[in-house]
Parts: sequence; structure tokens; C-alpha cells
Amino acid sequence: MGAIAVGVDVGGTKIQSAAMVSEKIAGGHRLMTPLTGAQDVAAAIAEAVSKALAEAGAQPSDLHAVGLGVPGAIDTDEGTVSSSPNLPGFQGTEPVPLGAKVSDLLGGVRVRLDNDVRVGILGEWKRGAGRGYRNLLGVWIGTGVGGGLVLEDKLYEGQGAAGEIGHTIVKPGGRVCSDGRRGHLEAYAGRARLEAHARHLAKEGHKTDLFDIMKRKGRTRLSSGVWAEALEKKDKMAVELIEDAVEALGIALCSVQNLLALEAIIVGGGLGDRLGQPFVHRIEKAMRPQLFVPDHPPAMLNTEFGDLSGAVGAAVLAGG
Amino acid sequence: MGAIAVGVDVGGTKIQSAAMVSEKIAGGHRLMTPLTGAQDVAAAIAEAVSKALAEAGAQPSDLHAVGLGVPGAIDTDEGTVSSSPNLPGFQGTEPVPLGAKVSDLLGGVRVRLDNDVRVGILGEWKRGAGRGYRNLLGVWIGTGVGGGLVLEDKLYEGQGAAGEIGHTIVKPGGRVCSDGRRGHLEAYAGRARLEAHARHLAKEGHKTDLFDIMKRKGRTRLSSGVWAEALEKKDKMAVELIEDAVEALGIALCSVQNLLALEAIIVGGGLGDRLGQPFVHRIEKAMRPQLFVPDHPPAMLNTEFGDLSGAVGAAVLAGG
Repeated sequence: MGAIAVGVDVGGTKIQSAAMVSEKIAGGHRLMTPLTGAQDVAAAIAEAVSKALAEAGAQPSDLHAVGLGVPGAIDTDEGTVSSSPNLPGFQGTEPVPLGAKVSDLLGGVRVRLDNDVRVGILGEWKRGAGRGYRNLLGVWIGTGVGGGLVLEDKLYEGQGAAGEIGHTIVKPGGRVCSDGRRGHLEAYAGRARLEAHARHLAKEGHKTDLFDIMKRKGRTRLSSGVWAEALEKKDKMAVELIEDAVEALGIALCSVQNLLALEAIIVGGGLGDRLGQPFVHRIEKAMRPQLFVPDHPPAMLNTEFGDLSGAVGAAVLAGG
Repeated sequence: MGAIAVGVDVGGTKIQSAAMVSEKIAGGHRLMTPLTGAQDVAAAIAEAVSKALAEAGAQPSDLHAVGLGVPGAIDTDEGTVSSSPNLPGFQGTEPVPLGAKVSDLLGGVRVRLDNDVRVGILGEWKRGAGRGYRNLLGVWIGTGVGGGLVLEDKLYEGQGAAGEIGHTIVKPGGRVCSDGRRGHLEAYAGRARLEAHARHLAKEGHKTDLFDIMKRKGRTRLSSGVWAEALEKKDKMAVELIEDAVEALGIALCSVQNLLALEAIIVGGGLGDRLGQPFVHRIEKAMRPQLFVPDHPPAMLNTEFGDLSGAVGAAVLAGG
């Protein structure tokens, strides 16, 4: 078939690939992220690429380029990864040359890397919910709250590290965030801080079924699925904490909208995708009354590809 | 001399022109804004243009183009002004064709208009404190708090009306803003809301010399000069209210910096210019501990042209 680009979303838990043909997903593969170091992660990525190609009915020689979305700080020129606490084998002080490792395993194919959130937003912008918009924000609500901007029809970088909507101050002096500072959006809406706060409240004697649901699901963490089930069952603590998250998102997104006059906001990430359209509607409802120009609100959108956004965006990064 | 561009900053109180030669101010003129309607405002603008040209040693025939910075909603294609509550004669429901009126009075010369805050930021970016930066925010602190963004080396517009940093939510449920909503930056840092809050506190029995200073200066409003004098005299209320403003600015600018990874932030506007470098330093100090990437803070700058920023930017708009 010739000239197929494969994208891989490299997560702390899962590795997900997507082979794109004519801008559509033609094949993909998912496997667990090895816990045994960077070389094994690279091998798993190579396997996910090969299996996606095979599922798309393509030959290894059809592989044109590989794109990777990786959590942490990425040097896109060097193809290296650093500061990636959730990725086994990437915690050292030296940047890991993941691009070169994957390229070696795949016969020298060209490999491009970028940050996982940026790549997910790239995928939704170019192939998914964000198609056709010139100015949009992606807000990715998962363990933390990440973000990325498309401004004037280009992924915006600033000095680098742009898009940290999770560290918008929504409540000065409020809850402690993952970076130790107070009152950030992520302290209210990121899954890790939501869980920390729920554990704190439970320890103080507040009732909740969140941790029972977690155990029944065989989890050790309050996953997105645990939150979703607790909300369905109208668990009081879950309802209140998600209400706080919605309120915090409303505040942060409203301020961003007033500053940037965006056309669209896409809500993604593990928790964002899992809670879906009703969650996005609630955020919109919280934001609307605060908009400075209420006549031109941004379109409030879910991702189109859900947890495949990252793999699709990584393929786009590689030219697919 | 040939091909001189003249810019005019059209304010609710004053009209200020600047004739630019070789990117420097070669002449300028200031007069009071007529209170007698749009036609007289247009005539005053034409007079300010002619006098700036004469001061620059140029002939009327040297005038290449005129740029206007005007408060309110501007249709840049049509050269019209609407929603400009502070400009006498511009409060009607019909947009005022100010560009055409000024052009008629100046022999058909080309006239370009844009919003006054955007134009001021354009001036500082192209000719003043912001030269050479690709990504910057201008925050203009005057009666209200306006803003404008240069992103990737271009004035950013979004859907239109981008830059409303004054309507960033810094304290949910906090002080009432000019638009009736609560907790916005402008409610803490804009001169009109600062004055409203000071009057409220004084009525409640809190002591302050602010209003005595105002009367002594022959003012009916707490002008920037009144605030500056009260701060010098360590008036308790003035000190506390400006401290609140600094804190609010620190919160808003920190959130913007975390999102946009800017290279520079320029503080301008009547109050920003008047309080100057010490004020900017205090804002920087309030912002710094909250930055997500503390190693790459934005340069925190005063305007270079002070209250001439708008006229200079208007000249840039006209090609000067």
C-alpha cells in the first residue's frame, strides 16, 4: 500500500497504536506498558507498530514514519524524553533517546516524538472533533489536567511548555495541587488530587462508596470508571467532588475564553472521555454566565476518538 | 519629506497625536476631547493630525496615512466605532463611520482604526518595550483593565474581542466588576472599581485621605495621580487596595503565563504607567512563586512611551 504512518500513545499503563490510511484508523493494537525499563518500552512500541500495520493489511515495508506521544518533557529535535515520572525506566536524570531506540527496532524508520497531551490535541484538531477550527483549547482531564492550544491554525508553543491550563489559579489559597501550590484547577479536577481529597474526607469520617466500588472493580486507585459508577449511584461525596471539579473547570475555561476568544474547547483525557457529554454540558453551563462576550461562546466538544486521540495524533505527527 | 504616518489616540478625555519619522516621534499634539458629538471629535482628530505634521516640519501633502486608536468595538474593515460609552457622541445604536469622517477632513487620506488598547500594545510591541518579543501580553490598567496579545509574532484576535484579561476570574464570588459579574481582575485593579470600593469603605466609616487629595487636586475622580500621592503618603486604605490589586494581578498573570508561556508582559494604561516600575516589581513578586515553570519567567516591563503608546501604535497601524 505504501507510505503508512503509525502513531503510538505511550502511557504509564497502556501502549496504544493506530495505523492511519486515508486519514482513517485502519489498524491498531493495545498492550500493557512493560515495567522493566526503557528498552522494553521501546520493544513494546515496536510491537504495537507492527501489529497495527498487520491489522491494516500492510507490510513492514509500507511503514513510512512513526509518531510517539509520550508523557513528560520531550525534546522534539533530539527525540528524547525526560521528567516522565509515570513511565517505568524514564525516571533517571539523563534524557532517554526513545526515538532512536524505536527507530533501531524498526529498521531505521523516521520517528517523531511530542508530549502526549499535545499529540492528543493534535489528533482531535486534525482528524477529530476540532477539524476546521483555527483557535481552540484542548483540556485533557486525567490523572492531572493538561492542555494544549491551537491558535491561528497552528499548535501553539510559546517559550515551550505552553498549555498548562491545569495550573490556572481558580481559588486562591484553596486545595493543594500536585505541584504543592494551592488553588489550581488540577487540585479540583485531576484524578490524583480528587482521590487524595476523597481519601482525606473519608479519613475524617465522611461516608462514601467510592472505595468499595474501587475494591469491587479490583482497582487500587479511583479510576475514571470508579468515578463514573459512583456518580451513577449518586454517591454524595462523588457528586460533590465532581461538582467542585465542574465549577473549577467553569472558572478556568471562562477566564481563558475571555482572554483568547476561542472557537472551540475540546474536553478529553481519561476522566473527561469517561464522563463524556453530560460532563461537558455541565462545564458549559458553569462557564456560560461568566463569559464576557456571551454571544460568541466556544463550541464545547467531547473528543471524537476518546482514548485513541493520542495514537491518532501521533500518526498525524508522523505525517499520517 | 513625503510619506509620514500620523497616529491618534482618541480618548474620552484627551486626543493625542504622534507623527512618526524613521520610527521615532517627530511631532505630536494633545487637545481635550470635544463633548459635542462625533463630528467635532473628528474635527479635533484632524486638527491633532495637522499640528503633529507641522511640529514634525512636514507639509499636509506629506501625510501618507492616519491611524486611530479608539475605545469601544471597532469594525476595522468599515472604519466604524460602536459601544464606546466614554466617547461623547458615540453612544447611539448606529456605528459611527469615524474613519470616513476623518478622511474627509484630511483630503481623502487613508484612515485605519482599531481598539485603543490593541493599538497601544501594537505601539509598544513594534516600537517600544516589547520590541523583539514573539509572544507577549500587554495589560493596560486604567479606568478598566484591558489587554492584548502578541502570539507567534502577530497581534492575536481569536474570534474577535480577544485580550479581555480584565475579566479573568481571580476570586470566585469576590468584588463586583464593571460588567456586574463577581471576582474579576478588573474589580480589583481597574480605577473605576477601585474608586467604587474606596467610596464604599469610606461610607462604612473607614478612614482615608484619598478623597481629600482628590479635592485638593481639583478632581472629581480618584485619578492615577491621586492614587500615587496617597501611596506616597502611606494612606492605609490606598495601600491596602493597591495591595489587593497587585495580588489580583499576580493571580491573573500567573495563570496566563502558565497557559501561554510568554516571553514578556508589559504593564501600561493610566494607572500602570503612573505607578510605574515599583508597581510592576510588586506584581512580578506576587506572580513568581506561582509560576509552573519558574526557570522561564516572562520579562516584566513598563511601557516605553507611557501615555504616548496609543498614538505611536496608531501610527504603526497606519504604516509608520
